[in-house]
Amino acid sequence: MTTIQDVAKQAAVSVSTVSNVLNGRADRMRPETLARVEAAIQSLQFRPNKLAQQLKTGQTPLIGLLVPSMTNPMYGYIAREIETVAQEQFGYRLLIGSTYRDPQKESAFFEDLLSHGVRRVIVISSLADERHFESAVERGMVVVSYDRGATPGRRSQVAHVMPDNFEAARLATQHLIDKGHRRLAFATVAGMTMSRSAKIDGFHAAADAAGLRAHAKLIDGGPLNEYGDSVIAEVGRAMAWQIARAARRPTGIVALNDLMALGLMAGLRESGLVVPRDVSIVGVDGHFLSALSNPTLTTVQLPVPEMARAMVERVMHPQPDADADERGGVFAPTQLVERESVAPPPLAAKVRAAKASSERIAP
Amino acid sequence: MTTIQDVAKQAAVSVSTVSNVLNGRADRMRPETLARVEAAIQSLQFRPNKLAQQLKTGQTPLIGLLVPSMTNPMYGYIAREIETVAQEQFGYRLLIGSTYRDPQKESAFFEDLLSHGVRRVIVISSLADERHFESAVERGMVVVSYDRGATPGRRSQVAHVMPDNFEAARLATQHLIDKGHRRLAFATVAGMTMSRSAKIDGFHAAADAAGLRAHAKLIDGGPLNEYGDSVIAEVGRAMAWQIARAARRPTGIVALNDLMALGLMAGLRESGLVVPRDVSIVGVDGHFLSALSNPTLTTVQLPVPEMARAMVERVMHPQPDADADERGGVFAPTQLVERESVAPPPLAAKVRAAKASSERIAP
Repeated sequence: MTTIQDVAKQAAVSVSTVSNVLNGRADRMRPETLARVEAAIQSLQFRPNKLAQQLKTGQTPLIGLLVPSMTNPMYGYIAREIETVAQEQFGYRLLIGSTYRDPQKESAFFEDLLSHGVRRVIVISSLADERHFESAVERGMVVVSYDRGATPGRRSQVAHVMPDNFEAARLATQHLIDKGHRRLAFATVAGMTMSRSAKIDGFHAAADAAGLRAHAKLIDGGPLNEYGDSVIAEVGRAMAWQIARAARRPTGIVALNDLMALGLMAGLRESGLVVPRDVSIVGVDGHFLSALSNPTLTTVQLPVPEMARAMVERVMHPQPDADADERGGVFAPTQLVERESVAPPPLAAKVRAAKASSERIAP
Repeated sequence: MTTIQDVAKQAAVSVSTVSNVLNGRADRMRPETLARVEAAIQSLQFRPNKLAQQLKTGQTPLIGLLVPSMTNPMYGYIAREIETVAQEQFGYRLLIGSTYRDPQKESAFFEDLLSHGVRRVIVISSLADERHFESAVERGMVVVSYDRGATPGRRSQVAHVMPDNFEAARLATQHLIDKGHRRLAFATVAGMTMSRSAKIDGFHAAADAAGLRAHAKLIDGGPLNEYGDSVIAEVGRAMAWQIARAARRPTGIVALNDLMALGLMAGLRESGLVVPRDVSIVGVDGHFLSALSNPTLTTVQLPVPEMARAMVERVMHPQPDADADERGGVFAPTQLVERESVAPPPLAAKVRAAKASSERIAP
């Protein structure tokens, strides 16, 4: 790489003369000298190293972005939205790391960000404990946490942006109830995060309101492996085999997210069941893949571009009370997108068919 | 953020004393002084800023990764594999940018990398012209380019790693021919990249060998919009409607990649055709999503983890003749993964059915 020394040598001047040119202190310089330095900068394609500048300010125009796994298409989507705002509005770029919701990997990533002079970080983790983020804030970082709210009763220095997970799951469940489903399930994975917990609450709230709490079950697909969120579809797929073998299986299932729903649909099909004839499925996310599946997936659309914009703005312009804007960082609205994966439950369908048939037969 | 000045103040010593401790020059220091500095470092949680070190060496432990779009799940998969090797084997992290195959966006990203002191870059672009990468190499960057080979007849300073796109498409096409298909198509998008061109050559080679060149058509789904590769599924979906309306439509289609194949399958279904009964589809990539679709997608698996490893090793340890290892950077092998999206063509199926039926009827 071309250095300031190379420029000085080519222009036959001292390094401090080049430095004066670079820093706009050329007013008392002889025009020939200035021209020679500028020509050398041009011909050597020299760019002053911004590192020196960053060293002075202690800041780098980078945002750290910590995701559970880059392989999960939902995080690719969120990352692209964050990148677009960061780049177009602030000229910042992203330093990204997959941390598989592992606190040690998350802490190591924070250490590296600090040592790179990166002071602004967006974290997608939703681990129940975010003390390691608080400690980063104490060391001068601005941290925005996605998909979890502040720990209740605790004043947090971390800003939070999250979708309305409660309402998303409530909407999904209500849709199944409206279609006549009574045996309901919420399909999740092992390990409780804030967003999972909010979704489960929304699921139960809808079931309670319809007097169906006794029929509303949680199905835990077990732990993710070391690849974390990128294998959530496989957890859904394996879970489908268990569901298919169960004596009284649910007729309507809300999946933790779209990727799990896609895995569930694949597994149900492999085990001989037809979605939505035998089992109805609703996802949460609104990822573009949900419109490509067969059947297409009914899902609850989260406001991803709006949340991405809020995250970037909060990490660039931290506000002491940012969380207060929308009930602890919760973003509304979520919206049900009706597609093909939901139908009335098998029994109701049979009753209707019998009724229609008897009406035809009646004189 | 804590500075060296803060540590000096708390320990009541000079900045140069703290610097001596940090740089292991404490042998002639009084033990009390050393202990005081160490205690201050501890209590203030001070981390020496690696920027200073980077300024000296002109290097940052970051690899730049330029992808067409982070929203495309295939790039998420490749990025995760690259990240794993970079992190576990070299302790490097990734500075990622989506550049939508736009040379101006790519050049701007290179400028930013240079100014961050990042000297190692992996680019996924496969634009026909890579002169802007060559110019980065001349300025001291190590560039590894994915999914394109060196420009023929030209000595390149850019290292190349690419899957065997020719063989991948040839295998996919041969599989359709083996199943009895004669009306073949290769589904692509507007704009010729090296990898697209190699796939089209492989498609034609298989058709030629079977004497079917006259029946082998290219279908161009038109240009991608400003979101580039992330909308390729939508291009496939729109193309399916045209295919369904065509008088003599192809019975076997090789898609440019898995995401386009998933879009094609969605569009064919919407237009009333059944895959594979009416049309057979083969993808190229082997992304995990291809195992979740309905029908599951027959595809050609590319050696992604192996290629990712090669890219990181080449960008960390540049070799003057790296491309020579595998025919200009081409990585073998590719492998056909048979699933459900391919069946014999409708006509052959009818003939067979008629034959079986006449055999049963025959006395």
